[in-house]
Amino acid sequence: MEENTPGLTLLGLGAMGTALAHAWLAAGHRLTVWNRTPGRAKQLVGRGARIAPSVAEAVAANRLVVACLLDDASVGETLDGADLAGRDVVNLTTGTPAQGRARAAWAAERGARFLDGGIMAVPPMIGVPEAGAFILYSGSRDLFDEHRDTLAVPAHPVHVGEDAGFAALYDVALLSAMTGMFAGISHAFALLRREEISPRGFAPMLAGWLTAMTSSAYSTADQLESGDYTRNVTSNLAMMVEGNATMLRTAEEQGVSAELLTPFMTLMERRLADGHGDEDTTGVIDLILR
Amino acid sequence: MEENTPGLTLLGLGAMGTALAHAWLAAGHRLTVWNRTPGRAKQLVGRGARIAPSVAEAVAANRLVVACLLDDASVGETLDGADLAGRDVVNLTTGTPAQGRARAAWAAERGARFLDGGIMAVPPMIGVPEAGAFILYSGSRDLFDEHRDTLAVPAHPVHVGEDAGFAALYDVALLSAMTGMFAGISHAFALLRREEISPRGFAPMLAGWLTAMTSSAYSTADQLESGDYTRNVTSNLAMMVEGNATMLRTAEEQGVSAELLTPFMTLMERRLADGHGDEDTTGVIDLILR
Repeated sequence: MEENTPGLTLLGLGAMGTALAHAWLAAGHRLTVWNRTPGRAKQLVGRGARIAPSVAEAVAANRLVVACLLDDASVGETLDGADLAGRDVVNLTTGTPAQGRARAAWAAERGARFLDGGIMAVPPMIGVPEAGAFILYSGSRDLFDEHRDTLAVPAHPVHVGEDAGFAALYDVALLSAMTGMFAGISHAFALLRREEISPRGFAPMLAGWLTAMTSSAYSTADQLESGDYTRNVTSNLAMMVEGNATMLRTAEEQGVSAELLTPFMTLMERRLADGHGDEDTTGVIDLILR
Repeated sequence: MEENTPGLTLLGLGAMGTALAHAWLAAGHRLTVWNRTPGRAKQLVGRGARIAPSVAEAVAANRLVVACLLDDASVGETLDGADLAGRDVVNLTTGTPAQGRARAAWAAERGARFLDGGIMAVPPMIGVPEAGAFILYSGSRDLFDEHRDTLAVPAHPVHVGEDAGFAALYDVALLSAMTGMFAGISHAFALLRREEISPRGFAPMLAGWLTAMTSSAYSTADQLESGDYTRNVTSNLAMMVEGNATMLRTAEEQGVSAELLTPFMTLMERRLADGHGDEDTTGVIDLILR
């Protein structure tokens, strides 16, 4: 048992940290926890967790130390007095790619191996394999391989590169794409809002349509990688810009501000004006790179 | 055979009209075609199409008359001299909801039954059942039911209401949501553009993530219909606005303009400032309604 379910330390018991703790405890891992305010740790004692009285003692208790704190600055402050030499530090605190890279260097200076992580889930999905959650990891591949079984307990682990910034980068890229999709979904529902149309009746069609259109990720990737943005274009920019006019006119008719769509449409028009009417929308990517 | 594959007339042989013509001919329908420039019609003769020398004769040839023209104005101009009394007019020309409604009134004045349609496909998907294309129809349910088998030939037909404006409205709502998703996808790829990351390697993760996140359409619909935007919230507005800061900072680090994401983020912040931090992003819909 001990070999298959090694002990670990978890720093931070917010909503996500608590969900992680429950998952590891349920899987039979010896878990040492620390939280700035000890109240949250106490409820885990009944589940078998050990409370460390200080960060230094929490870190000393196990080789594997997972941090799930408020932000990157909290990670530095919290671990400031602890001896990280020989530790395997896994940082599941939300941050940017640059913060992940800087934190990796900081950990290396202190003699620790380091993995940065990005949790693609909300707390109720943690420890529920069928929920489809996953955790992105980047940094030390050795650390990842060695602790893979433990890391797999809360959610499916995916190592995306030795560059410690990549987990945050993939994480933010996915969230950014989702934000765009949510903006589009908001506009779509707004168009129907004043009509006798049931949002619940429309939802399956909308979800199905968007799911089918995610194939665009593959064609865009293929165009980026080949450098040829006219490759396998199904609806070219010139036609799409015409379609935009119908979308804008419909928004006007339905009393909906088009502010969520116009930035992308404006870039499509710029790319078209630059003579790229036979391309897909992929050229917009070049226009937003500074 | 005649009874199962009734004749019909098709006006307009652009890329989409030509695809429709091929589908109906392949299914054994007697097809009469008309196009402003006759060259395009000639290539269909070898496939069995009859060319009508005028719009009036094309309309006189069959009860079911399908128009797939440049825009709504073309529909009025093209059909101006034809006798529509007793005809079943199906308008597959791209337009807005108001144009669909006005065109329905115009057809009724001329003694025709009317359906407006929105084709959710690009031409290569027409007549290919496994391509997943569908055509939205609104207006006369009787016309739809009577001609359903014929209308099902090019792509799966879906009747969305007696209000003739609904086909265009659903069409534009789906395209608008897609536009938002494409904007998000563009931003995501831009973030990775200067890194040693293969776009093709990232595409499956991106497509899978967005597919999972389309479930948001259901929760948003449920919140709109109940009027309670705090219902089944997994990640509330206050947390999401914090996440936005990480996204903006990452865009800055990666040299990507955040212009595609900021309008939605700004509205989320406005809704949060209005005291709705415990809600989902659904409240943004109210903010873009004029």
